[in-house]
Amino acid sequence: MSDIKLLQQQLAQFAAERNWDQFHTPKNLAMALNGEVGELTEIFQWLTPEQSEQLPHNKKTHLEEEIADVFMYLLRLADRCDVDIIKACETKLEKNRNKYPVEKCYGSAKKYNEL
Amino acid sequence: MSDIKLLQQQLAQFAAERNWDQFHTPKNLAMALNGEVGELTEIFQWLTPEQSEQLPHNKKTHLEEEIADVFMYLLRLADRCDVDIIKACETKLEKNRNKYPVEKCYGSAKKYNEL
Amino acid sequence: MSDIKLLQQQLAQFAAERNWDQFHTPKNLAMALNGEVGELTEIFQWLTPEQSEQLPHNKKTHLEEEIADVFMYLLRLADRCDVDIIKACETKLEKNRNKYPVEKCYGSAKKYNEL
Amino acid sequence: MSDIKLLQQQLAQFAAERNWDQFHTPKNLAMALNGEVGELTEIFQWLTPEQSEQLPHNKKTHLEEEIADVFMYLLRLADRCDVDIIKACETKLEKNRNKYPVEKCYGSAKKYNEL
Repeated sequence: MSDIKLLQQQLAQFAAERNWDQFHTPKNLAMALNGEVGELTEIFQWLTPEQSEQLPHNKKTHLEEEIADVFMYLLRLADRCDVDIIKACETKLEKNRNKYPVEKCYGSAKKYNEL
Repeated sequence: MSDIKLLQQQLAQFAAERNWDQFHTPKNLAMALNGEVGELTEIFQWLTPEQSEQLPHNKKTHLEEEIADVFMYLLRLADRCDVDIIKACETKLEKNRNKYPVEKCYGSAKKYNEL
Repeated sequence: MSDIKLLQQQLAQFAAERNWDQFHTPKNLAMALNGEVGELTEIFQWLTPEQSEQLPHNKKTHLEEEIADVFMYLLRLADRCDVDIIKACETKLEKNRNKYPVEKCYGSAKKYNEL
Repeated sequence: MSDIKLLQQQLAQFAAERNWDQFHTPKNLAMALNGEVGELTEIFQWLTPEQSEQLPHNKKTHLEEEIADVFMYLLRLADRCDVDIIKACETKLEKNRNKYPVEKCYGSAKKYNEL
């Protein structure tokens, strides 16, 4: 079994054991995802871009926790909505390759509709 | 190679080919993550919890794209910050097992510090 | 002076006294806004829509704080970017009146481009 | 009547005319707020802090719209939850003055519990 499927199983079991499926509607999980991304953002908000690349040890540990929290709610949401997260990424990445051809967007941060 | 490592390699190559590493600082990736989570949230904002469990086909397709976008920025952030995302989840899940013992939080949506 | 201008002056002074203007770039303020909206979202994430309309006293107090935090960063951002927030709302509200004519969107949560 | 109360009245009327109060639960408004803050964030995500202080005209116009969208949902949320937004700010600002005494936090971006 893939790492992702295994984690999704563990998260499903974690919720089921606590009778939390009633709370884990896709709508609520989307909100929980927002809360966790907000906490992740706080780590970086006052840092310069350069500082954000050199986190001190305590902030790195904090970041690991927040990345985990975001990922776990995202996996849970994908699971509840029957979305195959790896396949969705492959599809989107292919789409992005077409939206952002190398020769048009090399070194540019513009959106595809501004290129 | 795991699915996740493979995706991270593809995303790193996608950015490198476009000379986008200059934009992909952890700080900027955290912001991009926010933007995508905002788009994901919009799908659900006016739906009832029940409706959110029964997305019509066009919204499901939209959701797949947004989940992919969120995941890809999260993987990129983890990569740029040297965070092992699966290991971070295992650590956090174990911590959550201790914070939320079944007997104390069964059927309750309270935060661990309110239990 | 309007309530809003007065608050913006107090916030500017608060930052200046602490030598925080260096941190209050529009980019950083946008991130701080995200963090606060994340905290506000957490209040509602596991509540039903009905429960969200009847907050118990402690959650109401918490909400007041989070609304204040969001508003203060928004005012600060508007101030740093020379945006007249009331005028911007009047302009947008007029635009929304055109995008969402009553007869087309009565009782519908569809986006203007789906109507 | 204050600018804010007037805007809240106009927004309430806008929703009532469209029979949208059914969608404007505090939970849903918190989600809509997230979506708009995500759009605001996108404006800044690839900019350096310095660039974020010198927005070109088209991005400035875009920012005005997004600030308006965020503010209008925030006002609507405050209205639906009976929160006096100016009073909430005054209370929070006073609290912040105590949490962040000038002599302890001058020139520092640390959180009050790290000072």
